[in-house]
Amino acid sequence: MSFSPFDHPVLSALVGDEEITGYFSAEAEIAAILAFELALAQAQAEAGAIEAEAAAAITAALKTFKPDMAGLRERTGQDGVVVPELVRQLRAAVSEPHGKVVHFGATSQDAIDTGLMLRLKPVIAHLEAGLSAVIDGLSALETRFAGRRLMAKTRMQEAIPITASDRLQAWLAPLSRHRERLAAQKPSLLAVQFGGAAGTLDKLGEKGPVVRAALAEKLGLADAPQWHSQRDNLAEFSGLMSLITGSLGKFGQDIALMGQVGGEIGLKGGGGSSAMPHKRNPIAAEMLVALARFNATQLAGMHQALVHEQERSGAAWTLEWLILPQMVAATAGALRQAKALVAQIEAIGT
Amino acid sequence: MSFSPFDHPVLSALVGDEEITGYFSAEAEIAAILAFELALAQAQAEAGAIEAEAAAAITAALKTFKPDMAGLRERTGQDGVVVPELVRQLRAAVSEPHGKVVHFGATSQDAIDTGLMLRLKPVIAHLEAGLSAVIDGLSALETRFAGRRLMAKTRMQEAIPITASDRLQAWLAPLSRHRERLAAQKPSLLAVQFGGAAGTLDKLGEKGPVVRAALAEKLGLADAPQWHSQRDNLAEFSGLMSLITGSLGKFGQDIALMGQVGGEIGLKGGGGSSAMPHKRNPIAAEMLVALARFNATQLAGMHQALVHEQERSGAAWTLEWLILPQMVAATAGALRQAKALVAQIEAIGT
Amino acid sequence: MSFSPFDHPVLSALVGDEEITGYFSAEAEIAAILAFELALAQAQAEAGAIEAEAAAAITAALKTFKPDMAGLRERTGQDGVVVPELVRQLRAAVSEPHGKVVHFGATSQDAIDTGLMLRLKPVIAHLEAGLSAVIDGLSALETRFAGRRLMAKTRMQEAIPITASDRLQAWLAPLSRHRERLAAQKPSLLAVQFGGAAGTLDKLGEKGPVVRAALAEKLGLADAPQWHSQRDNLAEFSGLMSLITGSLGKFGQDIALMGQVGGEIGLKGGGGSSAMPHKRNPIAAEMLVALARFNATQLAGMHQALVHEQERSGAAWTLEWLILPQMVAATAGALRQAKALVAQIEAIGT
Amino acid sequence: MSFSPFDHPVLSALVGDEEITGYFSAEAEIAAILAFELALAQAQAEAGAIEAEAAAAITAALKTFKPDMAGLRERTGQDGVVVPELVRQLRAAVSEPHGKVVHFGATSQDAIDTGLMLRLKPVIAHLEAGLSAVIDGLSALETRFAGRRLMAKTRMQEAIPITASDRLQAWLAPLSRHRERLAAQKPSLLAVQFGGAAGTLDKLGEKGPVVRAALAEKLGLADAPQWHSQRDNLAEFSGLMSLITGSLGKFGQDIALMGQVGGEIGLKGGGGSSAMPHKRNPIAAEMLVALARFNATQLAGMHQALVHEQERSGAAWTLEWLILPQMVAATAGALRQAKALVAQIEAIGT
Repeated sequence: MSFSPFDHPVLSALVGDEEITGYFSAEAEIAAILAFELALAQAQAEAGAIEAEAAAAITAALKTFKPDMAGLRERTGQDGVVVPELVRQLRAAVSEPHGKVVHFGATSQDAIDTGLMLRLKPVIAHLEAGLSAVIDGLSALETRFAGRRLMAKTRMQEAIPITASDRLQAWLAPLSRHRERLAAQKPSLLAVQFGGAAGTLDKLGEKGPVVRAALAEKLGLADAPQWHSQRDNLAEFSGLMSLITGSLGKFGQDIALMGQVGGEIGLKGGGGSSAMPHKRNPIAAEMLVALARFNATQLAGMHQALVHEQERSGAAWTLEWLILPQMVAATAGALRQAKALVAQIEAIGT
Repeated sequence: MSFSPFDHPVLSALVGDEEITGYFSAEAEIAAILAFELALAQAQAEAGAIEAEAAAAITAALKTFKPDMAGLRERTGQDGVVVPELVRQLRAAVSEPHGKVVHFGATSQDAIDTGLMLRLKPVIAHLEAGLSAVIDGLSALETRFAGRRLMAKTRMQEAIPITASDRLQAWLAPLSRHRERLAAQKPSLLAVQFGGAAGTLDKLGEKGPVVRAALAEKLGLADAPQWHSQRDNLAEFSGLMSLITGSLGKFGQDIALMGQVGGEIGLKGGGGSSAMPHKRNPIAAEMLVALARFNATQLAGMHQALVHEQERSGAAWTLEWLILPQMVAATAGALRQAKALVAQIEAIGT
Repeated sequence: MSFSPFDHPVLSALVGDEEITGYFSAEAEIAAILAFELALAQAQAEAGAIEAEAAAAITAALKTFKPDMAGLRERTGQDGVVVPELVRQLRAAVSEPHGKVVHFGATSQDAIDTGLMLRLKPVIAHLEAGLSAVIDGLSALETRFAGRRLMAKTRMQEAIPITASDRLQAWLAPLSRHRERLAAQKPSLLAVQFGGAAGTLDKLGEKGPVVRAALAEKLGLADAPQWHSQRDNLAEFSGLMSLITGSLGKFGQDIALMGQVGGEIGLKGGGGSSAMPHKRNPIAAEMLVALARFNATQLAGMHQALVHEQERSGAAWTLEWLILPQMVAATAGALRQAKALVAQIEAIGT
Repeated sequence: MSFSPFDHPVLSALVGDEEITGYFSAEAEIAAILAFELALAQAQAEAGAIEAEAAAAITAALKTFKPDMAGLRERTGQDGVVVPELVRQLRAAVSEPHGKVVHFGATSQDAIDTGLMLRLKPVIAHLEAGLSAVIDGLSALETRFAGRRLMAKTRMQEAIPITASDRLQAWLAPLSRHRERLAAQKPSLLAVQFGGAAGTLDKLGEKGPVVRAALAEKLGLADAPQWHSQRDNLAEFSGLMSLITGSLGKFGQDIALMGQVGGEIGLKGGGGSSAMPHKRNPIAAEMLVALARFNATQLAGMHQALVHEQERSGAAWTLEWLILPQMVAATAGALRQAKALVAQIEAIGT
């Protein structure tokens, strides 16, 4: 049973999203790294950087390769990354003499960062679908209740009458912008990572750029110079995660306030209490606020990680591992809860 | 396989501590909640708030009760907390007519917060042992290398000669203070939570205080008025988690810098690279820095959670669940890595 | 004398930028608000929403109007915003009977947020110039020292040789991306804020959109629907501030590390010590790290402010006032220090 | 006019506290540094570390010494700290040949950190008075309205009836704990900082401890070994600042919610609107929430600063200068607003 609420057997129902947490499992990570190694071998063979036979041997080995997890764990505790041991195991699985060109010219960060991008691709597709679902749900509410009256609240006090459409637009418009932001970030974010030991592809010489381009193409990622110590695209992406949960948090806070004041929102469902049978708690709304404040908190850590010293910082890089998956999970969970909350709204305005 | 690096099958070797993550598993949480329900029933029977037979029936049921996890998950997604469904299941397991006095006069927050305190007790003991281990290790180094010469560095530049003892004391002294802080916080932090629906123990009338005192005594926790919306003790505790990792982070940063400059530290072990066979990377040192910056980031969220509105805030309370276990795990992981790093030091100073 | 290091008579030399802090002075804020009121009156007269004579009277009054700062202070403490009293004072300064149409149909947030955008325009121009200066400086270093040898460092250990160009590119490329990001954000960020009391321009009826468009045009801002409770553009902008300081922080950290290890960088200047006459401390480099970690910290607050409840949240909005100016000042200060640091570099690599 | 809202000519009425910001002015900082230099000279003369005549000359010079602020600013931009130039100016003001023993055996950090402690002493007294004022005000409300009925709210929904006393205790009890925490922290927090260039008081030899003890005694601070790179006491203190604003933030949030729902609180005063004459906005309540979230944000930065490398880190130390004064100002401002808010409460409960 699990430690993080995002994949907790019970609490994940509140904040998690099974599909997303699956992308960050050890299996998914390792599978993505192996996809990198496979594409790398093939790209290198095509460029003549390794022998075609070697690529064939590696490809064959990867069809049946199953990592020894216990060994991975033990060595990762020593090495700080899983790749040295994984590569060692894979090399042993490749028929000689080809083992030694597994991971040729690459470094752990190439495999791990590229593996992350391979997984962020479907993750982003999932988030886009989630955003669209909420946007569509809110738009449907606007169609139904557009002209109904609400009492605007400014500074926690009644202001003047507005329409349900006005309030719904405040929830909707930012989500549309986030959808555009996500689309705009994708091309440059989802880039291959390939730089070798210290970012210079030293072992590939002139073949470096050609191999990298082929590697990117095989993996369906953008070709780009290595970004080992340049973490701004990832930090920008995590900022977008928090923009999304922040806007959803405002939606949730507004629903909770409407529910507390009464009279302007009809919600079905709601959570029960162990102590008070009359309670119908706006759980989904509260989760949106919690996830918003959670991601806002986490974002600071992804930005601290921008101070990534020299050619590779174990400290700054590990900080990203501790934070980014959670931000993505929080965003997916928030989109799920937002969709559920929209579905709970039976009426808005009078 | 798991989502969080703290209980990840591979990455936990870097940042985790198996014993600690065990305390935050779903099983441990549920077991602690059931321990609360058991002690509650017994305390209430002693005070005459429920019948002795009822307490006996509840005690008997709890001996063999196994929760239906799927049911817990489904209802928690609705209720925002696991307790309403857990209590419902437990009531069904208790022989009639006594089921209805399970959780009598209590609320979900009583069970969950008390359950947290029950688990923090051994967690703190584990952290104290971890702190002492690092303090002892550093003291042993001081005994061995006290008078050796180091070049002090101020503002990233050579300054004047100091001794190894001077540097070791800078690492050691804060840890001693943290050990004292932890001891000082324990009595008031490890308090029972018992307030009923809205904090007034409304169902127990005059018997409230007596039942609460007996409940606390049975659970080995301090008796205290309910703190449903008063989260300062927990925020203070999370601050101490970050003070510990922060001081360990300085230790790690110093070792990494000594390793990079060379000549002043002899370390055995170190991590390998997938690209450069000569590498001996100071992984433990880097993990300490990462965990320090991680906890500093998280602490802001525990303090945002102080804005806990009214008698119970689902948003603020859930934010704590998303953050506190990680801060504790990070601290335990950092203590483990610090102990390992101390053990790697073969020589310090010249 | 001043409280904030950013405009402190002494410390601002370390972290400040006089031009930028000028844009956030009370005078600049008030002048921008008055520019809003002027353009508003003119736009409204053109649309026939107020009489041409009224606009003329307001325009005339604004030529000589000097606010009573003590009165502003006293009422702001009551109102939470400066505008009600400022408008009252301005109305009194306008020849009757036209005073009452000062600020017609507008709300405080329109004036304040638009005023912020008016000031962010030249602020962004200043930041763009600062970015370009650093990019140009690094490019010049690359031209001079491109092929020189450096020893790459990964995980705080020597790795393999790279060139000075490789290291310079890691500093340079993100800054180019930030310059593009800034250009991309500007059109939608620098938008007018005009929504009236609760965002519906209730007092202008059909004339609302026309007045808003004319208002935007007169102020040189983009026309856009009100964004009173939609703070994502501002949060995104503050994220970019932190991306910039984060990338500059990596540059600073690398220089400081090169300086500590020695042999790969020649820096002129450097700070003295009150205790050690031999010291040449890499102050500029350290300031870049400090400002990076500062902005990363602040960013979390701007994202917490996304949870902006209902039509206007005094709490969330005020949180922005406490944070955004500092983030901008930190970015400008960092660009200044980075330019100075680049100028200190006499040689890089061997 | 000023950049920070805390000493802004208008906005400080919302969030500031004039007395507190005065303690963080350049004049106050410099005066405290000069107090350190004076006490140092006297302590050193008493211990025979410098000649009595020298101490007399320094004492005489300090009676009339006025620093050249422009020179301080220029050199600080070079040195990263104000002390080298301040000491140079002071030395020039002391009759020869005694100038050279100004600041003998000390380093900038001794003067600046000790100067901070000298100012934190009255700051803490001011905060204690502020805490007591709010506690007394809430206690008085409890005396007046104790048994009145309120409807408890849990998870933003009506729960069961409670009394005004129950709600008031939730606001009051944490403040009492904070008062105790402040008293408990004072003795170890308010310690002298005296370690010399690299923390070993190298220039004073055997006289080091005696001089430090006398220095502490003269300044009314605790004697303690140097804490140049051990920032935990300061981080703990900033944590307490955020605990205070966090608890006050809950109070403010509750009042704002009571005001929005209506019927349970009678508040006099309240802020006006530029657009809606009927508005009485709960400004003080909203400021408490803003300041709570502000300090929670800042706290992360003070904890990042715990990673203070080697014997002195310019980056980590400067980060503290950018953050700590604001946290203190926010706390003082929140206490002031809380006192004002308590005074606004005419009735609570029914």
